[in-house]
Amino acid sequence: MIYFRSDYSQGAHPDVLQALIDTNLEHADGYALDSHSEHAAQMIKDLIGRQDCEVYMMVGGTPSNIITITAALRSYEAVVAPKSAHICTHECGGVEAAGHKIMYYDAEDGKLTPEHIEAAWDEFEDDHTVIPKMASISHTTELGTIYTKAELEALSRCCKEHDMYLYMDGARLGTALTCEDSDLTIKDIAQLVDAFYIGGTKNGALLGEAVIIFNKAISDHYRWVIKQHCGMLAKGRLIGVQFEALLKGGEDSIYFQMAAHSNAMAKMLREGIEKAGYGFLGNSHTNQIFPILPAAKVKELEENFFFYEWAPEKDGMIPIRLVTSWGTTEDDVKAFLDALHK
Amino acid sequence: MIYFRSDYSQGAHPDVLQALIDTNLEHADGYALDSHSEHAAQMIKDLIGRQDCEVYMMVGGTPSNIITITAALRSYEAVVAPKSAHICTHECGGVEAAGHKIMYYDAEDGKLTPEHIEAAWDEFEDDHTVIPKMASISHTTELGTIYTKAELEALSRCCKEHDMYLYMDGARLGTALTCEDSDLTIKDIAQLVDAFYIGGTKNGALLGEAVIIFNKAISDHYRWVIKQHCGMLAKGRLIGVQFEALLKGGEDSIYFQMAAHSNAMAKMLREGIEKAGYGFLGNSHTNQIFPILPAAKVKELEENFFFYEWAPEKDGMIPIRLVTSWGTTEDDVKAFLDALHK
Amino acid sequence: MIYFRSDYSQGAHPDVLQALIDTNLEHADGYALDSHSEHAAQMIKDLIGRQDCEVYMMVGGTPSNIITITAALRSYEAVVAPKSAHICTHECGGVEAAGHKIMYYDAEDGKLTPEHIEAAWDEFEDDHTVIPKMASISHTTELGTIYTKAELEALSRCCKEHDMYLYMDGARLGTALTCEDSDLTIKDIAQLVDAFYIGGTKNGALLGEAVIIFNKAISDHYRWVIKQHCGMLAKGRLIGVQFEALLKGGEDSIYFQMAAHSNAMAKMLREGIEKAGYGFLGNSHTNQIFPILPAAKVKELEENFFFYEWAPEKDGMIPIRLVTSWGTTEDDVKAFLDALHK
Amino acid sequence: MIYFRSDYSQGAHPDVLQALIDTNLEHADGYALDSHSEHAAQMIKDLIGRQDCEVYMMVGGTPSNIITITAALRSYEAVVAPKSAHICTHECGGVEAAGHKIMYYDAEDGKLTPEHIEAAWDEFEDDHTVIPKMASISHTTELGTIYTKAELEALSRCCKEHDMYLYMDGARLGTALTCEDSDLTIKDIAQLVDAFYIGGTKNGALLGEAVIIFNKAISDHYRWVIKQHCGMLAKGRLIGVQFEALLKGGEDSIYFQMAAHSNAMAKMLREGIEKAGYGFLGNSHTNQIFPILPAAKVKELEENFFFYEWAPEKDGMIPIRLVTSWGTTEDDVKAFLDALHK
Repeated sequence: MIYFRSDYSQGAHPDVLQALIDTNLEHADGYALDSHSEHAAQMIKDLIGRQDCEVYMMVGGTPSNIITITAALRSYEAVVAPKSAHICTHECGGVEAAGHKIMYYDAEDGKLTPEHIEAAWDEFEDDHTVIPKMASISHTTELGTIYTKAELEALSRCCKEHDMYLYMDGARLGTALTCEDSDLTIKDIAQLVDAFYIGGTKNGALLGEAVIIFNKAISDHYRWVIKQHCGMLAKGRLIGVQFEALLKGGEDSIYFQMAAHSNAMAKMLREGIEKAGYGFLGNSHTNQIFPILPAAKVKELEENFFFYEWAPEKDGMIPIRLVTSWGTTEDDVKAFLDALHK
Repeated sequence: MIYFRSDYSQGAHPDVLQALIDTNLEHADGYALDSHSEHAAQMIKDLIGRQDCEVYMMVGGTPSNIITITAALRSYEAVVAPKSAHICTHECGGVEAAGHKIMYYDAEDGKLTPEHIEAAWDEFEDDHTVIPKMASISHTTELGTIYTKAELEALSRCCKEHDMYLYMDGARLGTALTCEDSDLTIKDIAQLVDAFYIGGTKNGALLGEAVIIFNKAISDHYRWVIKQHCGMLAKGRLIGVQFEALLKGGEDSIYFQMAAHSNAMAKMLREGIEKAGYGFLGNSHTNQIFPILPAAKVKELEENFFFYEWAPEKDGMIPIRLVTSWGTTEDDVKAFLDALHK
Repeated sequence: MIYFRSDYSQGAHPDVLQALIDTNLEHADGYALDSHSEHAAQMIKDLIGRQDCEVYMMVGGTPSNIITITAALRSYEAVVAPKSAHICTHECGGVEAAGHKIMYYDAEDGKLTPEHIEAAWDEFEDDHTVIPKMASISHTTELGTIYTKAELEALSRCCKEHDMYLYMDGARLGTALTCEDSDLTIKDIAQLVDAFYIGGTKNGALLGEAVIIFNKAISDHYRWVIKQHCGMLAKGRLIGVQFEALLKGGEDSIYFQMAAHSNAMAKMLREGIEKAGYGFLGNSHTNQIFPILPAAKVKELEENFFFYEWAPEKDGMIPIRLVTSWGTTEDDVKAFLDALHK
Repeated sequence: MIYFRSDYSQGAHPDVLQALIDTNLEHADGYALDSHSEHAAQMIKDLIGRQDCEVYMMVGGTPSNIITITAALRSYEAVVAPKSAHICTHECGGVEAAGHKIMYYDAEDGKLTPEHIEAAWDEFEDDHTVIPKMASISHTTELGTIYTKAELEALSRCCKEHDMYLYMDGARLGTALTCEDSDLTIKDIAQLVDAFYIGGTKNGALLGEAVIIFNKAISDHYRWVIKQHCGMLAKGRLIGVQFEALLKGGEDSIYFQMAAHSNAMAKMLREGIEKAGYGFLGNSHTNQIFPILPAAKVKELEENFFFYEWAPEKDGMIPIRLVTSWGTTEDDVKAFLDALHK
C-alpha cells in the first residue's frame, strides 16, 4: 500500500532521528528547560529575524492551538476563525472545553478575511455578548490554500484596529512558505502576527511544534497553561533536539527542503491528474490536493493506495484528499498516476 | 416615556405580588424544597398532563439554559441551535464557558429544522469531532416566530433517530402558546421534548422559570448542577409562590391571559403599522414585532417611546423591535400609532 | 414549629417588601442598569466611605463568590481559604467547576490567618504549581466568629506583600459588624480588602447581595462574567430597590437594626443555654451558635423547633446549630429555653 | 555532573531506541490506531491477566491523570487523594481547570487509606456538596512508598462500598512492583482497580504511558476526552513501538529489569548513607530516597551532583531527594558515597 493519507504516517527524517540517537544518553533538565531546547529557540529567533519573543517547545498541534488560545483569552473573550479551521472541526471541541467560544464563518477557500472579523464585531453588543479578541488562521489552511502577504497584512491591520490578537496555526507552515505561489516569508509572518507556530509533526519530526509568541499578554505565564492543559513533555529536550536538526542551516535546512519536496510531489500528482482530465475541489498548490474522481476509479485506487474520501459521492464522483510528505517518492506518484490512467 | 423595549421592564402582575405579600412571613425550607415549590410543581405536572417528570424552580432563563445543557452533556457532546438562539448570542458564551460547543446554523426565521441537525451529523466523523447530542430550540424564537406541531414532531423524530435530546427554551412560552397561529399545546410539547421551561420573568413574574425534565439522563443530579452553576436561590419558595399565582386556574390562569393580552397588543400595533404602509422584518405574530421605519421617524419616536433599533440604518430605513407585555395598555399602543401617523 | 434553622427562612422585612410594592409598576431598564440600582450603589459608596469602587447588584451569595473569584483569577491562579469556608464546603465545587483550585487549610475557628497564606506560598514552586493569588475570608465565618481589625489588617498586609487579592464573603456581614465584640467598621473593611459583599439574603431581603470591588483588575469586565456564570437578573432593579430600603438611614438603617436584633436574640439563647449548664462548639457571639446538648434532649426539642444537628452524636451529646434572624422574637427564644429546661 | 535529580533525565533505553529506529520508515495510521499500538495493548492485556479492558497509549503522566479523571467524573463529582499526590501538587491545578474538586487529606507517607475516603464521605451532605466518586492513589507514591496487597484490597473494598472508582497513577509502577518489600503483582492490581497506568517516561521510554481501564463507565468515549484535552499524539505509534520494546518478555522484560536496577542503585545509596550515620525523610525502599544531610555537605555535593533540596534547612540539616534510574551506574553511586564520606 502506498500512503497519501497524511503527512505524518512515517517516523522522523533520518537526520532528525540521528540527532535523537546522538543525544540519547545525555542527561538534561526536564520540561524543555534544557540546552537543546534553548538552542533551538535561539535558532528560531535568528530564522525569523526577531529576538523579542518567547519560543516554546510543544508536544503537538492541537495543544499548541488550545493552549495559546487559553493563555490569550479571558473567559468572556472569543476567537474568530473560518468554519473549516482545525480548532473548529478536528479538536473535539477542545477550545470550548477550555471555556472559549469560537465565532466561525464560512470561507470557501478556508481563508479568514477582515470581513469575517467585522462580522464578528457586528455581533458584539454589550455585556451579554462575547468579545472577539483573537483571530485564528491556518497557513496552509486545512484546504491547502495559503495567505498572500497583502492578505496577512490586511488581517494584521484589522486585528490591530480592533485590539485583537492574530494567531497562526502553522501545522503545515513549511509547505506554505515553500509553495511556488508564496510571496510571504517567515520573517514577514513574524512581523504581522502576535503568535504562530512552526509545525514539526507534519514535516519530518517524530512529534513537536515550536510556538513563538511576540505579545507579552499571551506569553505571560504561558508555561503554567501548558502544564495545566496536558501539553508539557517531561523529556522536553526531545523537541529541542529535533528542531535543532530540522532547522540546521536556516533557510537551507531540511525543514524547508522537505516541505519543498512535498509540494513538488503534490504538483506532479496535480498535473498528472489534470492531464487525465479531472478537476479539483479548491485550488491548493501545497501538499494537500483534492481531486474529484469517478467513484469506481476511487474504489479501484483504494486497493493499492491509502487516502481519504473527502466528501460523499455526488453524481458518480467522489472528491478525495491526497497528501504528500517528505517521504513521498516519485515512484509513489508515478504508481498513482499509472493506476489512474489504467 | 412609554416602554416597548422588553417584556420585563415592570415588576410582577398584581396577583403574583399579592401572593408574595401573603406568604412573606411564613417560614420555609430553602433552595426550593418548600411546600409552595412542591405545590407549583404539581400544578405544572397537571397542566402539562404528565406526572413522570421533574420540575425545578429556576432563577432565570440563562441559568435554565446553561444548567440544563450542562446537566445533559458530557464534555465531548455538543448542542445544535439556530445562530440567532439566545444561547448563541446573548448569554456571553456561557455554554462554552461551561465547556460545550454550540453547533450553530443560519435560520432566517430563527427556527431549527431537521436539516440543521443532519448538517451537524454530516460534520461528525470520529473521536476528533464533537458529538451532536442535544438540539436546542426557543418557542417563541428570538425573532417572535413559533413552531407548528408538525415542525416540532419532525424535530422530535429526528432527535430520537440520532439519540439526541430535544430541549425547548420557553422564555416566551406563554405568547407562543396563545398566538392565534399556534396549533401546539403545552401537552403536545410535554410529549415531544426531553426538557423545556415555562418562562416567568417575561410573563408577569418578578423572576423565575420552571424547568421540566422528562429524561432521567438529564434530571440525574440536576440540583447539584444548579448549585454549582450559580442557579440556586436560597429563598427558592419565592419562585414556587409566584408560579402558584401565575398558574392558578390552569389553562385559564393569568399566565395565559397575560400572554394573550401581550399578543393582542402586538397585533394592534402590527395592524396599525401595516395600515401606515410599513413592512416588517420576519413575520412574527407574537409579542415581538420588527417594523422597518424611516430613520427620521425612528428618531422622532425615540423621544417618547423606548424600544431597540434592531439593525443599522439601510437605505434610509431602520428595523426596530417593539415588545409588548402584560402591562402594555391599549393607550400605549394608540399613542405609538398616533405618533407614527403624525 | 419555631425556626432556628437558618436566617433565610422568611421573606423580606416589611419595609423591603413595601419598597417592592411601591415600585412594582415602574418601568425600568433590565440587568441592574436602572436608577434604583444606581441609587443603591451610591448609598453604598457613601456608607463605606469610598467613591472609587464599582458596586454590583448580585442575585445571591454563591454567585457573588464564584463570579468574583472567576473575574479575579487566571486559570493557573488559586484562592486560599479556610477548609470550613462556604466556597469549600457548600457550593458544590462551583469554584473548581469554574476552573480554580482552592488551597484550603484547617482553621478551628473558621478564620484564615497570614500563616495559612504563607503555607500556600510554601507549596509554590514554579510552573508546575498553581499561584496563590487571592485570599478569601467570610465575615462572620461559617462558625459565627468574626475578624478583629488587627486580624484583618494583618491579612491585608500579607496579601499585599504577596501581590494577592483579599476578598470577603459578607453573607452575614450585618451580624459581624453589629456584634458586641466587633472593633471593625464597614469603612475599615473598605480600606483593607480588594472586594467584599454586603449580604441581603440572610438579613431581610428576598434575595440579593451587593458586591463592592475596589481593584480594577477584578472589576474589569465583571458584568460579562456575571452574565456568563448565570448571575445576572433580568429585573435587576429588584435588588437595587431592596438595598435602597435596607440601607436607608445608613448606619441607622434597618440593615444594621435587623442584624443587631439577630445578635441580641442569639445572645439571649446563648446565655440561657449556658445557664442551663451546657457548653458550645466554638465561641460565636453572632447569630449562629452551636450548643452541645444531650441527644435525648435534642430529639425532644426537634418536635417543636427546626434546627440542624451539626455533627454526629458523641458520648451521648449532639452539637446543634441555632440561627436567629430579624424575624426571631423573644417569645421564640423563651419557648426554646423553656423547652430546654423542661 | 552526575544526575540524581530525576528518572527522566536521559533519553530511551537502547532497546527502545532501536525499536524506534527499526520502525521509523514504516507508514502507519495516526492517533495510536496502528498495529504497533494494538500489539502493545495486547501484550499488556496478557501481562496483567485480563482481556476485558481497554488500553490507551498516552503522551504523558499528567495527561493520563487529568484525562482519566475527566472521563470518569461528572462536574459535581470529586476525586479523593493524599495531599502529596501529583494531581494535587505538580499538575498546576489541571484537575480543577478541567472542573473537578480534589478532596485532599494529609498522609505522612503519601498513602491514601479507607479512613481518608470515609472522611470525604463525612463531608458529604446533599446537593450543596460534591460527591466523592473516585479515589486516586500513586504507586509508588510521590514519597517513594508503596501499597501492600492488603492496603490495596482495603481501598478497593472501600471504593466498592461507596460506589467509587479506584484509580492508580503508575508513573513509577515499575519500581513499585520490583521493590523488595512488594507483595503486590501487576495481576493483583488489575483485579483491584478500575483504571491504572504503566508509566514509560520514568522507566526508559522517550515518552508515553499506557492507561488501562476496566470500567466501561470510564472508557466510554475516552478517546474523545484524550483529543479534547491535548493528550492525543498524531504519531501515536511511537508509544506503541516503545511499549512493545519495553514489555517484550513480559515479566522478564527490560521494563522490570530497569526498575529493579533503579531500586538496587537506590538501595546501595541508602545503605551507604545509613552507614555514614545519616537519617532519612520517610522510609522509601524504591528509587527515590530522601536523606537528611548537613547543609554544608549538601552545598559541597551540589558541585558534582545534581539533585533537589527537598525542604528548607532546619537545625543545620537539609533533606534532599536522590532519584536513581535505569541509567544510573554503580560508579555514579560510589562517587556520591565517596563524596559524602570525604
